[in-house]
Amino acid sequence: MTSDVDIAQAADMLPIKEVAEKIGIEHQAVELYGDYKAKIDENRIEGLEQKKDGKIILVTAIHPTPAGEGKTTTSVGLGDALQKIGKQAAIASREPSLGPVFGMKGGAAGGGYAQVVPMEDINLHFTGDFHAISAANNLLAALIDNHIHHGNELNIDARKIKWKRAMDMNDRQLRHIVDGLQGKTNGIPREDGFQITVASEIMAILCLAHDLEDMKEKLEKIVIGYTTDDQPVTAGELKAHGAMATLLKDALKPNLVQTLEHTPAFVHGGPFANIAHGCNSVKATNIAAKYADYVVTEAGFGADLGAEKFVDIKCRLSGLKPSASVVVATIRALKMHGGLPKNELDTEDLEALKKGLPNLLKHLENMKDVFGLSAVVAINKFPTDHEAELQLVAEKCRELGIKVVLSDVWAKGGAGATELAEEVVQLTEEETTVTYAYDIEDPITVKIEKLVQNIYGGDGIDLTRGAQKEIEQLEALGYGNLPVCMAKTQYSFSGDQHKLGRPRDFTLPIRDVTLSAGAGFIVVLTGSMMTMPGLPKTPSAEHIDVDEDGKVVGLF
Amino acid sequence: MTSDVDIAQAADMLPIKEVAEKIGIEHQAVELYGDYKAKIDENRIEGLEQKKDGKIILVTAIHPTPAGEGKTTTSVGLGDALQKIGKQAAIASREPSLGPVFGMKGGAAGGGYAQVVPMEDINLHFTGDFHAISAANNLLAALIDNHIHHGNELNIDARKIKWKRAMDMNDRQLRHIVDGLQGKTNGIPREDGFQITVASEIMAILCLAHDLEDMKEKLEKIVIGYTTDDQPVTAGELKAHGAMATLLKDALKPNLVQTLEHTPAFVHGGPFANIAHGCNSVKATNIAAKYADYVVTEAGFGADLGAEKFVDIKCRLSGLKPSASVVVATIRALKMHGGLPKNELDTEDLEALKKGLPNLLKHLENMKDVFGLSAVVAINKFPTDHEAELQLVAEKCRELGIKVVLSDVWAKGGAGATELAEEVVQLTEEETTVTYAYDIEDPITVKIEKLVQNIYGGDGIDLTRGAQKEIEQLEALGYGNLPVCMAKTQYSFSGDQHKLGRPRDFTLPIRDVTLSAGAGFIVVLTGSMMTMPGLPKTPSAEHIDVDEDGKVVGLF
Repeated sequence: MTSDVDIAQAADMLPIKEVAEKIGIEHQAVELYGDYKAKIDENRIEGLEQKKDGKIILVTAIHPTPAGEGKTTTSVGLGDALQKIGKQAAIASREPSLGPVFGMKGGAAGGGYAQVVPMEDINLHFTGDFHAISAANNLLAALIDNHIHHGNELNIDARKIKWKRAMDMNDRQLRHIVDGLQGKTNGIPREDGFQITVASEIMAILCLAHDLEDMKEKLEKIVIGYTTDDQPVTAGELKAHGAMATLLKDALKPNLVQTLEHTPAFVHGGPFANIAHGCNSVKATNIAAKYADYVVTEAGFGADLGAEKFVDIKCRLSGLKPSASVVVATIRALKMHGGLPKNELDTEDLEALKKGLPNLLKHLENMKDVFGLSAVVAINKFPTDHEAELQLVAEKCRELGIKVVLSDVWAKGGAGATELAEEVVQLTEEETTVTYAYDIEDPITVKIEKLVQNIYGGDGIDLTRGAQKEIEQLEALGYGNLPVCMAKTQYSFSGDQHKLGRPRDFTLPIRDVTLSAGAGFIVVLTGSMMTMPGLPKTPSAEHIDVDEDGKVVGLF
Repeated sequence: MTSDVDIAQAADMLPIKEVAEKIGIEHQAVELYGDYKAKIDENRIEGLEQKKDGKIILVTAIHPTPAGEGKTTTSVGLGDALQKIGKQAAIASREPSLGPVFGMKGGAAGGGYAQVVPMEDINLHFTGDFHAISAANNLLAALIDNHIHHGNELNIDARKIKWKRAMDMNDRQLRHIVDGLQGKTNGIPREDGFQITVASEIMAILCLAHDLEDMKEKLEKIVIGYTTDDQPVTAGELKAHGAMATLLKDALKPNLVQTLEHTPAFVHGGPFANIAHGCNSVKATNIAAKYADYVVTEAGFGADLGAEKFVDIKCRLSGLKPSASVVVATIRALKMHGGLPKNELDTEDLEALKKGLPNLLKHLENMKDVFGLSAVVAINKFPTDHEAELQLVAEKCRELGIKVVLSDVWAKGGAGATELAEEVVQLTEEETTVTYAYDIEDPITVKIEKLVQNIYGGDGIDLTRGAQKEIEQLEALGYGNLPVCMAKTQYSFSGDQHKLGRPRDFTLPIRDVTLSAGAGFIVVLTGSMMTMPGLPKTPSAEHIDVDEDGKVVGLF
């Protein structure tokens, strides 16, 4: 079989300057990174604010299973299909993290004939954004410990430092460490830890900032920990925000690449939706909407995480307004949600499908009833799909007033999703008013409870005493009126990754709550969610290689 | 006073494409990173091997003091001056590390009117090379611990892992850590630590590799530690080298920027010469010599470290042949070497100068007598220099047959060093045969002793029992025939940073010896040399900022 990287490397890319020209981006704003990547500098564009905005289409999905659902692939293919039916379209998606590239998942730039290219570059260092975020994150960490080392004027309690170090790597060994060891010239001994760069608050800040000034203000407000008398200490008090913003000034500019069919793709920012807010940058989505009539954007994992945070965090904090949504599913994945093991997915099984379908239906209800968004279901086609199965899905969705469209973009690119594109265009004709899952003024626990009850379909929450105390402290300090960012397993509506389909009668255990005062939300850690992944026994790093001409192999 | 960043930002840069064209680099080999930075891809150039090589001029210096000596500034100015007197010249220098940028020293792209630009970019992320090196370093680290975590088939002894993690940051807190804490899902508890990225063996490998294949072979040979029965374990056995090379494939391509006077500058690779081999990349020096008739290259810190490693490691391993050397000094610094405190440097003091001069003279003897290199002394001019002082220096150098030339490039750019340029051209007319400070077949201790006796002017070495044992083990394993890379204070010929001038009657304490089997040398740690710096009480990070238009301030 032709692999993704083979297809990508055989691509006939347009010079990125031409891609930018095609949608009218002024040439002086295009900063080249080689011939096929660019950053767009809004500061060099006059009158951008006055331009009319295109329509934003959110692509989300059912809960992922090992059968795969193809959300990114569908997003890319939908962009190409919109282009194909004569619309000015663009894609706004997230940058891949090196962690999964070298771990299990591999690349994250779409698949088959629906990819963004140059895929090796995008999956490796790209334009250096993640490295810049790690550097800014770790500069702040170094400044914190250095401040304590040189006398601790701010009276920081080393046991209450919340700011972790970051690395764009799956490295479980760094989750929990003790640093500052071996005597007084080597820092102060304390418990510490690393998280993966995508989980850093800096990533969220970069993705939510409107411009450089706004980003700097957000950086200044970061709470790094508390004093011995429990007062918050900010990055601003450490005079760290200027240097951090300097490290991030180029990373803040949206990246422009293209799909295999030359549709412009703004690939920028990339938190994971299970441990962070999971959406690409506001700046990239905004600029895509200024130049394209239709912007296809994606939010990570299932709609309970990705789409919820897209609406409740990204749209609420930025004023973005989506016009329609696409929920991606596969027959195979739905059958897995119905209890079928991976090796039995080829044969027709309406019973399993019937049991798994409520996963999709609950997500659709959420999109419609909670968020007020029109939706279409995109079934990412597999040769093993059976007609009766497809009919059953169509029928059940029709009962909710939602259409099901087949999509075959992996094999056919944009040509495999023209019907989906037509339906999406139709949906965006209607006026939508997006509504939120909770009010910003709700107490923190009420916000979490509303998400559990209305989005996840559970009964309520189960707070540890530590989380309870933390919530009280945050509300006392005036941080109660922030949206919440759930860190929850991506595999289930519940906190238990083994509860597939549509689980009921569960409560969600809340282990800890942390403040992201700079990004402007509160992170709620459920169950045993970790912010630093590990590598599998045979990491994909073992198969990735480069030949003497610089050609990359083994990257999927 | 106009600051370096002010001067740099006022520069009228040529598009880097034009700079490349000027020295005849084929346009298809120029990969743009914005308008003013590029990487040069040798794979896209036909017949490069057959081209005649230009002459290589090594710029080195006396031992640095707080008075400053201006080695980088002089290198840049000399390149401009060569251009000015009608020669096709280029500069081949090192990339700055973020550690010093945010710490004490500030930027490292020259100063005044002798700078490489765009200086903010060069001092910040530049083209991402250091980040790629950190990522490759840390991928290997993650693969080591992951291997042990998943069963440890290779039987790695966790107590004998030599491979450290890396970060491009001054962060003393990470020097000594215990990681893998909190139970069996979180790795294996062990002692560990970080070094600054420039000290990583990967940096040395990148700087010494001839091409991608050669780099991959070197990566494969890295010894990460030992098994329980003391056998070396390599990166190749962990199947890490392919993915590491993939991360480094672009970093290996030399970067091209320009001086304020549009002289091409290949700024690539950048280890510190006190803890690593301290030279820019072989690839960049090579390619500069293919396109320019005169290549000015620089080696870090004083000539006992920088120039020694340039000859004994870089030239020996790569076959490069320098044609002449420039030893940079200032009257002020020489007076500090003579015992004068920093606040008394303005007044004439021939006695102090006489006491400090042997520092310069010993370096000159080394260049001539040990390495067989012709030399000229460049006195980096200050308004406080006195005529009698300059005369004294000239006289003493004349006794060694070496000319002294004044250089004023900080204030005047290339025009401040035309006499120096003429002298350098003259020196390169003579045929030179470079000789080494030790034979590659000498036993490890003999190599170190020869350096101490012949280069540093000391009596001998003082080995700890641990270092002794390590040396025996390395020789038993067949690693005895490698050059040695001294990690020694940059402030003195001796191991004691307070012994300025030309100390005598000392022995050098050798604390530890470590193998860099991939880079192809043995690192010798003397005294208390650390491979991860710390930040000062008021780090320069506190003053670095960026305004709303993206303009950087406070970077020196």
